[in-house]
Amino acid sequence: MPSIFTKIINGEIPCYKIAEDADNFAFLDINPNAKGHTLCVPKKEVDRLLDLDEEAYLKLMAFSRKVGQAIEAVVPCERVGMSVIGLEVPHVHVHLIPLQSMKNATFQYKESLTPKEFEKVAEQISGALK
Amino acid sequence: MPSIFTKIINGEIPCYKIAEDADNFAFLDINPNAKGHTLCVPKKEVDRLLDLDEEAYLKLMAFSRKVGQAIEAVVPCERVGMSVIGLEVPHVHVHLIPLQSMKNATFQYKESLTPKEFEKVAEQISGALK
Repeated sequence: MPSIFTKIINGEIPCYKIAEDADNFAFLDINPNAKGHTLCVPKKEVDRLLDLDEEAYLKLMAFSRKVGQAIEAVVPCERVGMSVIGLEVPHVHVHLIPLQSMKNATFQYKESLTPKEFEKVAEQISGALK
Repeated sequence: MPSIFTKIINGEIPCYKIAEDADNFAFLDINPNAKGHTLCVPKKEVDRLLDLDEEAYLKLMAFSRKVGQAIEAVVPCERVGMSVIGLEVPHVHVHLIPLQSMKNATFQYKESLTPKEFEKVAEQISGALK
């Protein structure tokens, strides 16, 4: 069965899309640690980060860097943090999280956004991508 | 003033060393979220991950992948997680954390190891590096 992220990438489940290239796809986390929290996901469905071959891994990391820089350009924060945990959805995903404090990095504090706020921040990040 | 990580890299502060190449250095986190928790640090002192130029960033990520695979090979865990937060030490560091559960990813739970345990796990990870 395809993962929830594959369904998002295929357009079967809606998302607030940020960016896409040949190999990777970025969209807002719907249960964010902070406004602008984004997931970068390889289109190829692999469970664990370190099981990606080196080329796919480095492409994902280069893609995440560009998306992270776009987030930093438009979302007020001390810096953008990066986390790969993967204990819930068995499809590699890089969390890019605008951090104000450690609170935003623990995955215990969550922020509530309206659909309009999600749309606006997705557009801002998307627009900041070079 | 050099960061605490630069002092570790220069041998001015002792560490449980895992690996080193021309650009990056890996050693055990002394206040680990789990046994085997390792930090990968670029030798060049830069504060924020996304301020590394693309080449330095990808070298750090490729280095972290190899160290992470070595950790996964010898430390019992569900998988190795990766986090870059950076709110405390202003010198880029990639956390590689053997995860059993979400507990190990929050930076709130900490594990106590004896010096002998640190030495042993550092040797095991080091030995597993290809």
